Amino acid sequence: MSKKVSIIMGSDSDLPIMKDAADVLKELGVEAEVTIVSAHRTPERLMDFAKNAHLRGVEVIIAGAGGAAHLPGMAASFSPLPVIGVPIKSSNSIDGWDSVLSILQMPGGVPVATVALNGAKNAGILAAQILGVADEKIRANIIEYKANLTNQVQAKIDVLEKDGYENYKK
Amino acid sequence: MSKKVSIIMGSDSDLPIMKDAADVLKELGVEAEVTIVSAHRTPERLMDFAKNAHLRGVEVIIAGAGGAAHLPGMAASFSPLPVIGVPIKSSNSIDGWDSVLSILQMPGGVPVATVALNGAKNAGILAAQILGVADEKIRANIIEYKANLTNQVQAKIDVLEKDGYENYKK
Amino acid sequence: MSKKVSIIMGSDSDLPIMKDAADVLKELGVEAEVTIVSAHRTPERLMDFAKNAHLRGVEVIIAGAGGAAHLPGMAASFSPLPVIGVPIKSSNSIDGWDSVLSILQMPGGVPVATVALNGAKNAGILAAQILGVADEKIRANIIEYKANLTNQVQAKIDVLEKDGYENYKK
Amino acid sequence: MSKKVSIIMGSDSDLPIMKDAADVLKELGVEAEVTIVSAHRTPERLMDFAKNAHLRGVEVIIAGAGGAAHLPGMAASFSPLPVIGVPIKSSNSIDGWDSVLSILQMPGGVPVATVALNGAKNAGILAAQILGVADEKIRANIIEYKANLTNQVQAKIDVLEKDGYENYKK
Amino acid sequence: MSKKVSIIMGSDSDLPIMKDAADVLKELGVEAEVTIVSAHRTPERLMDFAKNAHLRGVEVIIAGAGGAAHLPGMAASFSPLPVIGVPIKSSNSIDGWDSVLSILQMPGGVPVATVALNGAKNAGILAAQILGVADEKIRANIIEYKANLTNQVQAKIDVLEKDGYENYKK
Amino acid sequence: MSKKVSIIMGSDSDLPIMKDAADVLKELGVEAEVTIVSAHRTPERLMDFAKNAHLRGVEVIIAGAGGAAHLPGMAASFSPLPVIGVPIKSSNSIDGWDSVLSILQMPGGVPVATVALNGAKNAGILAAQILGVADEKIRANIIEYKANLTNQVQAKIDVLEKDGYENYKK
Amino acid sequence: MSKKVSIIMGSDSDLPIMKDAADVLKELGVEAEVTIVSAHRTPERLMDFAKNAHLRGVEVIIAGAGGAAHLPGMAASFSPLPVIGVPIKSSNSIDGWDSVLSILQMPGGVPVATVALNGAKNAGILAAQILGVADEKIRANIIEYKANLTNQVQAKIDVLEKDGYENYKK
Amino acid sequence: MSKKVSIIMGSDSDLPIMKDAADVLKELGVEAEVTIVSAHRTPERLMDFAKNAHLRGVEVIIAGAGGAAHLPGMAASFSPLPVIGVPIKSSNSIDGWDSVLSILQMPGGVPVATVALNGAKNAGILAAQILGVADEKIRANIIEYKANLTNQVQAKIDVLEKDGYENYKK
Repeated sequence: MSKKVSIIMGSDSDLPIMKDAADVLKELGVEAEVTIVSAHRTPERLMDFAKNAHLRGVEVIIAGAGGAAHLPGMAASFSPLPVIGVPIKSSNSIDGWDSVLSILQMPGGVPVATVALNGAKNAGILAAQILGVADEKIRANIIEYKANLTNQVQAKIDVLEKDGYENYKK
Repeated sequence: MSKKVSIIMGSDSDLPIMKDAADVLKELGVEAEVTIVSAHRTPERLMDFAKNAHLRGVEVIIAGAGGAAHLPGMAASFSPLPVIGVPIKSSNSIDGWDSVLSILQMPGGVPVATVALNGAKNAGILAAQILGVADEKIRANIIEYKANLTNQVQAKIDVLEKDGYENYKK
Repeated sequence: MSKKVSIIMGSDSDLPIMKDAADVLKELGVEAEVTIVSAHRTPERLMDFAKNAHLRGVEVIIAGAGGAAHLPGMAASFSPLPVIGVPIKSSNSIDGWDSVLSILQMPGGVPVATVALNGAKNAGILAAQILGVADEKIRANIIEYKANLTNQVQAKIDVLEKDGYENYKK
Repeated sequence: MSKKVSIIMGSDSDLPIMKDAADVLKELGVEAEVTIVSAHRTPERLMDFAKNAHLRGVEVIIAGAGGAAHLPGMAASFSPLPVIGVPIKSSNSIDGWDSVLSILQMPGGVPVATVALNGAKNAGILAAQILGVADEKIRANIIEYKANLTNQVQAKIDVLEKDGYENYKK
Repeated sequence: MSKKVSIIMGSDSDLPIMKDAADVLKELGVEAEVTIVSAHRTPERLMDFAKNAHLRGVEVIIAGAGGAAHLPGMAASFSPLPVIGVPIKSSNSIDGWDSVLSILQMPGGVPVATVALNGAKNAGILAAQILGVADEKIRANIIEYKANLTNQVQAKIDVLEKDGYENYKK
Repeated sequence: MSKKVSIIMGSDSDLPIMKDAADVLKELGVEAEVTIVSAHRTPERLMDFAKNAHLRGVEVIIAGAGGAAHLPGMAASFSPLPVIGVPIKSSNSIDGWDSVLSILQMPGGVPVATVALNGAKNAGILAAQILGVADEKIRANIIEYKANLTNQVQAKIDVLEKDGYENYKK
Repeated sequence: MSKKVSIIMGSDSDLPIMKDAADVLKELGVEAEVTIVSAHRTPERLMDFAKNAHLRGVEVIIAGAGGAAHLPGMAASFSPLPVIGVPIKSSNSIDGWDSVLSILQMPGGVPVATVALNGAKNAGILAAQILGVADEKIRANIIEYKANLTNQVQAKIDVLEKDGYENYKK
Repeated sequence: MSKKVSIIMGSDSDLPIMKDAADVLKELGVEAEVTIVSAHRTPERLMDFAKNAHLRGVEVIIAGAGGAAHLPGMAASFSPLPVIGVPIKSSNSIDGWDSVLSILQMPGGVPVATVALNGAKNAGILAAQILGVADEKIRANIIEYKANLTNQVQAKIDVLEKDGYENYKK
């Protein structure tokens, strides 16, 4: 069976950020494919990829890019699938504003679900939440994941309140 | 049967923007409930709403808010559902940056799918795309909707190329 | 003979800005075609247009778009021609930053020659300057155009210095 | 007797900043409790904490958070107490704008007293000033604290004017 | 008996904004004085005012100013009282950033409790919350005020849910 | 024969960025001269350079500068040639905004073709595209360059898809 | 005798702002010349003007410009005189940031004394302060001007305190 | 005889930046005093200093400060002298915007001559230019200083053009 989430990025330099999406999806019981699609250097591959993803069984696209980040929006242009955009802070970025605004400010008719700057982990969780609409197992995994978040914080609270802030993690 | 998309907003002053989400969802064959939940003035209602939405059959939450816009993020905090955030430019907004950043920059673990400033229509389309993952009829409606977008542009192209730019719409 | 400059824009709502490019090109003795190509609503037309423009005899592309403005960058992705990008301040723009950064911050390998916000007139002049590299008549027209700019300012100086600033244009 | 100031933060990674608030409060003769309350990962704890703080004898809440910083505003939503917000520059922050605007731009009806980016020390002083409204000892401590600030600067002035700027601290 | 809250502003052009602070304080049972103190045009008055306010029985200072807004910070410099700063968007403001940053980014040692741009109402509420630390009647008024906020939203919810969003307020 | 592209910069500290323009031009078969022209420290040289460049056979000017970057715009003011501006992030830059806006926001009549922050490589490619309007050999080199970009990405795709993202480049 | 202050601007559209400089100078007993010098449309006039101003007896230059505002910096480049820059918010300005940064961020060696956005009145006062260094009459006028500022505020204070804020200017 | 330029700064941590002003003034033949005046920690000293500077023979004040930088504006409020403001990027600065806007955006009536972020050297040169209005020796020194700037650039040009850019400074 094909993978339901496709994680694409504009360059292999984005991989250290974007792998967080794949990792959290694995944790939530979702398999994902991971590859490179460059809007500006492989535009025909982008078109082929985005037009056909839903025909191959992909249900959600996660696209990460930096600078004038056109990959998420162009994928959304060609595909009927929900597209999650991850703005990445590139080396000559103007503080991340360029990728955030290039991905977020899509015109009416063609949404991209944008997450925080470098927020690939959240893109993975969001993809699982989307699949969870029709998959009870994944929804249950998300509920458990969120409970774990709470528990992890609670464990830190217990240490902090017991040790006092002056001695915390010393 | 309950409605699958819940559209909430922080104030009735947001309704002129947020109704675009409900309207486009109707066009795409999806019923939505529309109500007010204020993170800052009805925080307990927010908690009740967000903890129980998925138990009532809601599958996607669309939340719009302006200024220090905490509604989408807090809904995402309490709910396992995908939450779509619509940044709204409020009357004393600092150019929209406040609502955009308050919604977009969620911490790892709790995503909000953010759309463009005042982009409620795109929030509606995105909600339909999410439901389309498990509903072929809705997916087909989206594909048709996108084809119509193309056709509408093409109709304008034909007029522009026939009349010339100097005479367009005169 | 085909036209050497192609002026494209994402929507007919951009025409009131973009016609300045066509008008100044006419003034400089250059014919231009004017049409609509939407990166997000007619992506296949974009690809066809941009891959073939140079084969049709087009020498320079001027592309205007607002918001998450992907049209200039995607045209540059598909075409070997110089592409001039005009950031347009759309209705829900975040002060124009979105279109400026979406067009300007292209990755290494795929330039877009970006002009000022709503600066379509300058895009037209720049296109003429580019054609002027190989066309002495157009270069001469540009030199004359610049001399006229100087003369127009000088005429205002003469009035201002003669009338005094308190009486200027009263 | 319970502590009158409660210092909360969204994550233990905020502690290196937030401990400045506790330290300066100690210096000003005010005891404070320090703990973690995450708006997004422990939302029910947030509600319990904020609804009950004034019933436990807390008089001022100091809340620090980064990114889409909802903790101060949500605490203010549930509590009648004055809430002081500390915007923290998180690791993927967009230059601190996200936390500043998420905390500052609260809607009418629900204020948060916002201090400078990473300004936890000032949050502590402000809490003491608030308690000083009804506590002459604390007010006196603040007056002394401010006099010390002046004296410390004066000591540096004396050295600088005596040694000359070329030799200062060499 | 003297008034416990002093509301000052840099210019009478700030009064249409700043009167909201006085109005909400009245609603919360707190009397306030309202006057003009210009940091840049009446600097000696500023010094006299701020050095003596606490000696006159003032407990909280609310200071509003626009542009390079020095009034709140300089009041905080001279006074041991809590100072609440209201950034005002002046006529040549750079989108409000100037007054926000001039008030918010105070150095360690001298806090200003900053509220939202043009947020004078919230400044008034915050002043009441501060007085409420030592005045049960005012605290009770705040609790009632917050309950009213909730009720007002609930009333709108009832209409919206009864009439449907298409018919709301038509 | 003189060189057709002239690369100028405001300071030798810009050379580590600006040499990318010369390098990529060499790769595309175009010879370029490289020198320093400071708008603020050698203004007369700027005037001489810019007034005479086209008389010497230069066809395109590439100008890089940081901070209040006046070099590209002033060169465009004196010359009829197309001028490409490279905003450089200087040591006391306000995040690059200063050089970007100083170069981009030229008034009507005097365009500068602006590329991304520190985007000297793209300035070189753009210059080659401009020369390619009248030089088939250069146009062919650009087409080949773009094909190589695609091939380089494809090679990385092949490794990534073969090795899997967990093992990529380890 | 020649005039000691020269007020120049890039376009006659800047005159409604820039005349404030001339008006306040008159009030302070300083005569000024007012004319147009466009950096981009009359660059040779700029050079002649700026190289010779001090030889003609001009002592201070005030230069106003919008967008990519090069006039103040280039005047400073050619002239040994103090140059005061007035950033003007032009019609397609990006919120004034472009002219502010183009004027303010001058490189080491070539200062421009920048005043607030559209702050031509302050430019005039500053010019008078500079002349006041060597002219006791002008210094006295400035001291009187500042005293008047204080008096004007005091008159408003008297009305506001007498009438109460509810009745002010009604 | 007293010194004609007074260089003040808000904290000794500003000295590494501010000493550039003193150094360049020395180079231009102008003596300066250097000391600390904190608007927020020594406000009375600020008042004494600024009210009396011109009585002591000071002719120009240079004031540097970071964050909510009130020192230059408050000095200008108390003094009839020209005040030059140096925005300093402090450790918790929001990219320098806070000090730039706090200094630049002064209200009508009270100018501060603002220079670039961390631009203390330019503040020194500007102070000398101001003194040069009435002192021919200083004016001559400035003319020589500017000639030297040109010569230094020319020397680099000679090396760059002789060695070629590939070998420059290797």
